[in-house]
Amino acid sequence: MKATAVAPSNIAFVKYWGKINDELTLPANSSISMNLAQLHTTTTVDFSDDYAEDLVEIQFFNEPLERVQGSKKQRVVDQLNRLRKLANTHMRARVRSINNFPAESGIASSASAFAALTTAASAALQLKVNTRELSILTRLGGSGSATRSIENGYVEWKKSDKSSKSYAVQLAPHNHWDLTDVILIVSTQSKKTSSLEGHGAAASSPFYQARLAELPARLKIIRKAILDKNITTLGIELEKEAISLHVAAMTSVPAILYWESSTISAIKDLYSLRESGIEAYFTMDAGPNVHVICETKNAHLVSDHFKKKAYVQSLFISRAGEGAKIIPNHLF
Amino acid sequence: MKATAVAPSNIAFVKYWGKINDELTLPANSSISMNLAQLHTTTTVDFSDDYAEDLVEIQFFNEPLERVQGSKKQRVVDQLNRLRKLANTHMRARVRSINNFPAESGIASSASAFAALTTAASAALQLKVNTRELSILTRLGGSGSATRSIENGYVEWKKSDKSSKSYAVQLAPHNHWDLTDVILIVSTQSKKTSSLEGHGAAASSPFYQARLAELPARLKIIRKAILDKNITTLGIELEKEAISLHVAAMTSVPAILYWESSTISAIKDLYSLRESGIEAYFTMDAGPNVHVICETKNAHLVSDHFKKKAYVQSLFISRAGEGAKIIPNHLF
Repeated sequence: MKATAVAPSNIAFVKYWGKINDELTLPANSSISMNLAQLHTTTTVDFSDDYAEDLVEIQFFNEPLERVQGSKKQRVVDQLNRLRKLANTHMRARVRSINNFPAESGIASSASAFAALTTAASAALQLKVNTRELSILTRLGGSGSATRSIENGYVEWKKSDKSSKSYAVQLAPHNHWDLTDVILIVSTQSKKTSSLEGHGAAASSPFYQARLAELPARLKIIRKAILDKNITTLGIELEKEAISLHVAAMTSVPAILYWESSTISAIKDLYSLRESGIEAYFTMDAGPNVHVICETKNAHLVSDHFKKKAYVQSLFISRAGEGAKIIPNHLF
Repeated sequence: MKATAVAPSNIAFVKYWGKINDELTLPANSSISMNLAQLHTTTTVDFSDDYAEDLVEIQFFNEPLERVQGSKKQRVVDQLNRLRKLANTHMRARVRSINNFPAESGIASSASAFAALTTAASAALQLKVNTRELSILTRLGGSGSATRSIENGYVEWKKSDKSSKSYAVQLAPHNHWDLTDVILIVSTQSKKTSSLEGHGAAASSPFYQARLAELPARLKIIRKAILDKNITTLGIELEKEAISLHVAAMTSVPAILYWESSTISAIKDLYSLRESGIEAYFTMDAGPNVHVICETKNAHLVSDHFKKKAYVQSLFISRAGEGAKIIPNHLF
């Protein structure tokens, strides 16, 4: 009753922002992302009748393993309960979750963590679930973006008002198009407003309905740009989408201005780089950091352009990658 | 046939952004502003049959008087032609325009300049115009915001699809409420996109209609906040409006990101100041600089908070002021 899974973080090309159902984590709009091969969480779940209670341990790069408590632990236990119910068991579990990136790096670990947890726990409990069902179970864990980390490569998470119809589908495998995300960490301050609060406030923006109205056309453009491997079309739309997300955030009640001064510095420096002929485009999640998307052949040029900037606290590079998978015979 | 007028710059509380008629400078929405007593243009217009051609000289603080040519001169000549036609004369004019603020300061001089020009030229030509008509004539000069610099104090420029109905009205005189604008010049780079181009692009934003839809309620709130002298209500709405303007700009095609890194630094530092209990709120025009609006009793605290910041290149302070007026017996 033990299994280990590895799952990638992902970067959204079309963002998930706002829910139509909190309990079921049903999103207000479909979203599209690319899995990040080099940023992942490896999670082992071990169920046993010998364990008196659930134990959750998390490790980040260069830090000791930490036993977590409180609400952090509860989110994991809630997800285990959901899966135990399906497996009709009450066995407690030991969960060990290893992130290959630092904790205070500005990289959100919830997508990779909940995808790896759900994949490993489902396997340990020998649940018979296909990829679609696994993405739904992952979604129910509460980290919506984790839903997209289950499928391989370029992924769309479909919106629906039915739980059984809101799941991830593959648009193209990771090796269809060799894209790289150069992640500029420009602030590691923890957010004043959590993503959860942000989702809750989304609908209060006077611009939110206009945002939702523009998304069907945007999803179509981005799906096609991925299939056509058209970096220009993808890039222009990526930037519009990132701005649109932040517009919704900065006009919600309360207003959430995720951008830091360094965010604007990175955007303006990216504009300069592009003027020199390099096709690279920004996107941003609900936070201050800037993801620069480019074809992998340009990744080093992009990275060289930014790594000497004073406002870049750290820089990560990741290519498109596979989705969550079980690692057989993993030892720890 | 000679007169001198002084006219203030103004800071918009509700912004003018987008036109329904370019030729007549008819705005897509009504706007509200406060005249700035300490930032003004003094313009003398002297008509004479002796002059063979129009001569336009402009001076900024600490700089020599400059004779202008090209499109800069043409905008002035066009406005003189409009007024000459009304006065039924072909006399050429000498125009001398003195700004009491620096040229590259980031303070837009077109509002004060066109209000002073129109006021002085109308007087020199002995046109019988009341304040309302003067604001319409000023508007036709092409700098919409100048329309608001004609009336005293707190001013609303009414939108209309008829030229005769789009003019400035006073909401309250300048001494009704002692507000101060602490202007943080955080960038003096000239804009890549002029306001004129910005107005043209406004309607291309997918959020522009949502912006126009929210303005009637906002105008009402701000009118009442001025009458009630309620700084909290005014301030919260000011910030929403500034964000809304920049949302429209950054989502237009082409996207115009007026903000610099220093803009965000100023906003975040203002948030900190406010957490310490000082009621001060930002607004921004179509540019990177930040105007901090507060009651005059707090102006020095605000100014002290910002003047030591490295990103503040210069700082201007102005209280609410009167509108354009003729200076009798002005000599120069």
